[in-house]
Amino acid sequence: MTPDTQDIEPDRQSFHMTPDEFRRHGKELVDWVADYLERVEDFPVLSRSAPGSVRAALPARPPEQPESFAAMLADVDDVVLPGVTHWQSPSFFAYFPANSSGPSVLGDLLSAGLGVQGMLWATSPAATEVETHVLDWLAELLDLPPAFRSDGTGGGVIQDSASSSSLVALVAARERATGGESNRAGVRPGLTAYASSQAHSSVEKAARIAGVGSAGLRTVDVDPDTLAMDPAALERAMAADAEAGRRPFFVVATVGTTGTNAMDPLRAVGEVARRYGAWLHVDAAMSGSAAVCPELRWVHDGLELADSYVVDAHKWLFTNFDCSAFYVADREALVSALSIVPEYLRNTASESGDVIDYRDWMVPLGRRFRALKLWFVLRWYGAEGLRHHVREHVALAQDLATWVDAQPSFERLVATPLNLVTLAHVDGDGATQRLLDEVNASGQAYLTHTRVHGRLAVRVSVGGTWTQARHVEALKDLLREAAG
Amino acid sequence: MTPDTQDIEPDRQSFHMTPDEFRRHGKELVDWVADYLERVEDFPVLSRSAPGSVRAALPARPPEQPESFAAMLADVDDVVLPGVTHWQSPSFFAYFPANSSGPSVLGDLLSAGLGVQGMLWATSPAATEVETHVLDWLAELLDLPPAFRSDGTGGGVIQDSASSSSLVALVAARERATGGESNRAGVRPGLTAYASSQAHSSVEKAARIAGVGSAGLRTVDVDPDTLAMDPAALERAMAADAEAGRRPFFVVATVGTTGTNAMDPLRAVGEVARRYGAWLHVDAAMSGSAAVCPELRWVHDGLELADSYVVDAHKWLFTNFDCSAFYVADREALVSALSIVPEYLRNTASESGDVIDYRDWMVPLGRRFRALKLWFVLRWYGAEGLRHHVREHVALAQDLATWVDAQPSFERLVATPLNLVTLAHVDGDGATQRLLDEVNASGQAYLTHTRVHGRLAVRVSVGGTWTQARHVEALKDLLREAAG
Repeated sequence: MTPDTQDIEPDRQSFHMTPDEFRRHGKELVDWVADYLERVEDFPVLSRSAPGSVRAALPARPPEQPESFAAMLADVDDVVLPGVTHWQSPSFFAYFPANSSGPSVLGDLLSAGLGVQGMLWATSPAATEVETHVLDWLAELLDLPPAFRSDGTGGGVIQDSASSSSLVALVAARERATGGESNRAGVRPGLTAYASSQAHSSVEKAARIAGVGSAGLRTVDVDPDTLAMDPAALERAMAADAEAGRRPFFVVATVGTTGTNAMDPLRAVGEVARRYGAWLHVDAAMSGSAAVCPELRWVHDGLELADSYVVDAHKWLFTNFDCSAFYVADREALVSALSIVPEYLRNTASESGDVIDYRDWMVPLGRRFRALKLWFVLRWYGAEGLRHHVREHVALAQDLATWVDAQPSFERLVATPLNLVTLAHVDGDGATQRLLDEVNASGQAYLTHTRVHGRLAVRVSVGGTWTQARHVEALKDLLREAAG
Repeated sequence: MTPDTQDIEPDRQSFHMTPDEFRRHGKELVDWVADYLERVEDFPVLSRSAPGSVRAALPARPPEQPESFAAMLADVDDVVLPGVTHWQSPSFFAYFPANSSGPSVLGDLLSAGLGVQGMLWATSPAATEVETHVLDWLAELLDLPPAFRSDGTGGGVIQDSASSSSLVALVAARERATGGESNRAGVRPGLTAYASSQAHSSVEKAARIAGVGSAGLRTVDVDPDTLAMDPAALERAMAADAEAGRRPFFVVATVGTTGTNAMDPLRAVGEVARRYGAWLHVDAAMSGSAAVCPELRWVHDGLELADSYVVDAHKWLFTNFDCSAFYVADREALVSALSIVPEYLRNTASESGDVIDYRDWMVPLGRRFRALKLWFVLRWYGAEGLRHHVREHVALAQDLATWVDAQPSFERLVATPLNLVTLAHVDGDGATQRLLDEVNASGQAYLTHTRVHGRLAVRVSVGGTWTQARHVEALKDLLREAAG
């Protein structure tokens, strides 16, 4: 049991890290993380790493002998950190927030420390029950329709990402539409899905993976001003497909598109979907969290028409990736689409029908105890704290939008319903690209882009855990300077 | 910013957990986890929780006000722990090992603390490059064929589970077989996949999700003694399908089946697959880790004929779930099957072709920096430490097998190639069930079952991080007593 490492870690007794070594190194690492959070503003937000530079700093071959924790932590500082784009920087305004928080990180640490595998209720009842319970809590915080609760016909489950959530929603819809025949005999031509031109790329990816194909996904036109799905266009597309003998089976409506935060009209879209017997999946990955605030619950108007719903707690609810909260209104539709029970997974509890086996709600069989981090977040912040910070982000973005409107060099290209501001330089794409490049090269902030009606646009997503007014003020200065 | 929580956490200044609060609570939690590991043997291995008992102990409604960390940790002790089945107990012999270790838990903590999202190289170059590099290291440690390395035509990626790995392998195979037509136009009838009757249920789940259907998956007969796939039966099935105008496109061979640890003959299976132009996916989730030991590399004989390969570092390589190491021999086949690039993800680095964007290697778009935990594990243990512990597990299982053979009450139903012993009571299924129930009810160990040729069998999977000879000795006593 004794490794030849006395020279490396003098007191090391075994290859394993003993509980006492874990205490020591764990506390060193907790301090490292706390220090990191204290200095995260000092790093260039966007990594300046060149391709291959991180790998070039690592030994070509794996270590034969054990190494010390100190050596590993030194490499984190010297090799890893220069290659990190700092998503937790308060000046990270790119893509979407990937929120994190202390209680979430600690919930994840507890999950790793317990090391349970919650594929079945029986393999750790608490992993399943805390998840079900906390997702009911979240449903209440967001005021989701009663069908999405576990005491209704549905319930929630944590998926790794909205991409996976959309995939399982599409598969459940496919099986509902074909009476399970796609699972049995394979997909047959004619199944047709619908999403707006602004929907997330994961919808097309899901259509491909699930055998429906890109050609089986209709791109529905949007309102040119709001970039929200046009329900009349959806109706025309579904009518034409039904007329042609195709089977409209799945509609995705988005609450906050990734590009510009456009809000599809759920009620009107849902009514059309229902007329054709199609499954309505609501992708609120980006913006569903807004509904913790009663005054922002308009984002969910019509949600009672949905068959499934996803909101990413790991985007804008202070919870570390991965924590995509996926809800279905009819859990039987989901489970019957995804359940396969081999002998070695059979057990009394499952056969009683009294418990949930979350493996039947998702693609992977294995699962971590991810509910702990969401449980910790909801308790540490309380509804009050979550509302406070979501409101603050929206207020900061609205302030920035007002400021953009007052700048002669900038124009906003679409509305700012919540916390994403989409702007362009009035001098055109070249100027907008220079603006983007200059801000990002400064290291003081990180912004990404999209296109709106063919025009290059800068996106400013305000939702970082640590983002405060002073960071948005500093961004204004950067934008003003970079605009020339 | 000041919450009304002075009564709850007297020094709390904001809704957020400040870095200093994180320091304090983080260290409390590190101690809690270390204490847990020190006392994990004291708990009944299988939770005695009744359905609903965990939920019954939780408040029905989410908290309106913030709560203290002390309150949360108290509930972990009082509510969560009784509902935990202790996968990290040294007497957990059920299902498969879900290995964990100190360096892995700390790598995961670092990943959560950094909170980066590595969907693209550009969104944190280190997240991608450490992953590529460490998976090359692992390929070297397991002596995988050169094509699976990133400096060959392929490379590795961390997936959440072998289920997801098998799904993306099947989709890549489907697209290779149809020239991308399934992604474009949807799956058409005729695609046929093959796996043995002992293959993991995730293979059929993947066939269903990907639109091939259960009917498109042939169950290939196994050798009655070893339960390994019979290559002649595979050949007959593929020939009949090809003859009938179907398209054999995907073969799964298993290195260590979940039920009994059967080893499909990769070389013979691969030669058959090649003759029909089918993609060979090797599911070594359970037992691929054995190959860290040169004397056990026979498990991979013929692996150079494979198109993809998966080994779960989170099963038997001391790394926390989720860390499924998935390799392809031709990365272009995988990426072309899974890549969709919307405008907001375009960036200079991706378009240069010089970098890997792992989002194109998997279902989810988002990804954690999971490579850190594997990096920490490989460095903390060194190749030497990994080999030491894998060898120890195999030796303990072999010793147990020998002991079982010497017991008049027991018989082994199949061979014990590595670390899984499959046994039954000689008095038949009723006696075997009582054996299982009695051991599990004792709380001293946890065993699960399978069926072998219709007979109920007890599985003893020896692979826990903390499992030592004394735990296997104690299990022998339990089995002997329970056998009556």
